[in-house]
Amino acid sequence: MEKGILVVISGFSGAGKGTVVKKILEKSSDYCLSVSMTTRNPRPGEVEGKDYFFVTREKFEQTIKENGFVEYAEFVGNYYGTPRAYVEQKINEGKNVILEIEIQGAMNIKKIYPESVLLFITPPTAEELERRLKDRGTETDDVIAGRLSRAYEEAAGIDEYDFVIVNDDLDRCVEDVLETIESAKREPVRVKAFTESLKEDLKKYHK
Amino acid sequence: MEKGILVVISGFSGAGKGTVVKKILEKSSDYCLSVSMTTRNPRPGEVEGKDYFFVTREKFEQTIKENGFVEYAEFVGNYYGTPRAYVEQKINEGKNVILEIEIQGAMNIKKIYPESVLLFITPPTAEELERRLKDRGTETDDVIAGRLSRAYEEAAGIDEYDFVIVNDDLDRCVEDVLETIESAKREPVRVKAFTESLKEDLKKYHK
Repeated sequence: MEKGILVVISGFSGAGKGTVVKKILEKSSDYCLSVSMTTRNPRPGEVEGKDYFFVTREKFEQTIKENGFVEYAEFVGNYYGTPRAYVEQKINEGKNVILEIEIQGAMNIKKIYPESVLLFITPPTAEELERRLKDRGTETDDVIAGRLSRAYEEAAGIDEYDFVIVNDDLDRCVEDVLETIESAKREPVRVKAFTESLKEDLKKYHK
Repeated sequence: MEKGILVVISGFSGAGKGTVVKKILEKSSDYCLSVSMTTRNPRPGEVEGKDYFFVTREKFEQTIKENGFVEYAEFVGNYYGTPRAYVEQKINEGKNVILEIEIQGAMNIKKIYPESVLLFITPPTAEELERRLKDRGTETDDVIAGRLSRAYEEAAGIDEYDFVIVNDDLDRCVEDVLETIESAKREPVRVKAFTESLKEDLKKYHK
């Protein structure tokens, strides 16, 4: 069976990446979302092993010591991390594992897994980003201004990603993401097993 | 109008890349083949401007001096070259220009046009390559052995390409090539104009 790959999805707040990821999971059983481990308490309705793996601080810190996280961070007094064992198990089962994280985490992932695919999702224009943030109607003007200011800073890192996907039309964007991931599987770094075996087999013809 | 890109296609002799290119041209009017300039005489049926641009040695050498070739080579006493003006005109017209060349030329193209896409087409196995070369029935055993030996040497360069496309089923391979080229257009090096303008527009939101 073909192994899956690790797909990192980043993008400005308001780019619509959550919706894109949800559509991908609905559309294709080849994909799954990485489930994070956390020390915070479950909220009503959250399911162990689906929303999070809920653990104690002791268990989390033990996992850090055992190098058991792909990446982790502490946030408002609680730990959040991506368990290496879960990601690698899913990849070995042939699933493409999606990780929704920010640029710093994305760059760390690329160092550990050079064969991971890093996607940056962006609205077509800055004005459209502003419009989407305002249309949500859930945040104060100050929060929106903060998100837009942060988007400017995040934009500096776009060139570090493997692919930039414009989210103009949602369905088109989902198609583009799926097509891009399939194409990324044809890059030399991700076909090493194939090319090495081909080179080995061709050796016998060499004069 | 969106500009086209330069698509370099390489592959072992017997990989079927000629057939793949022919199918792409039949299938999509977004693509055209680069027309080479040559000093050799036209053969019966060859059409000026379609098969080749036929020119004198003086004209060819003048074009070299004017830096008018993307790449050129002398072969059995005749010059062959890819005219820069033709390629750039087609790209500006929105066409993806296909160039079928070998690895050394491909690497030179990448230096001059970092936004070009380099594809390497290969059969699924070495044995399948041997079978295809034998099935052609047009070459002696010696020539076939030479091609297979050369394939081993060429395989060393596969990792320098942007994408490796396996030609197992022809129609599938053509689809994969087209999908890969569309995806390649989403790599940062090929969306520079978009990301630079986005960064510029986001600047006004920065606090």
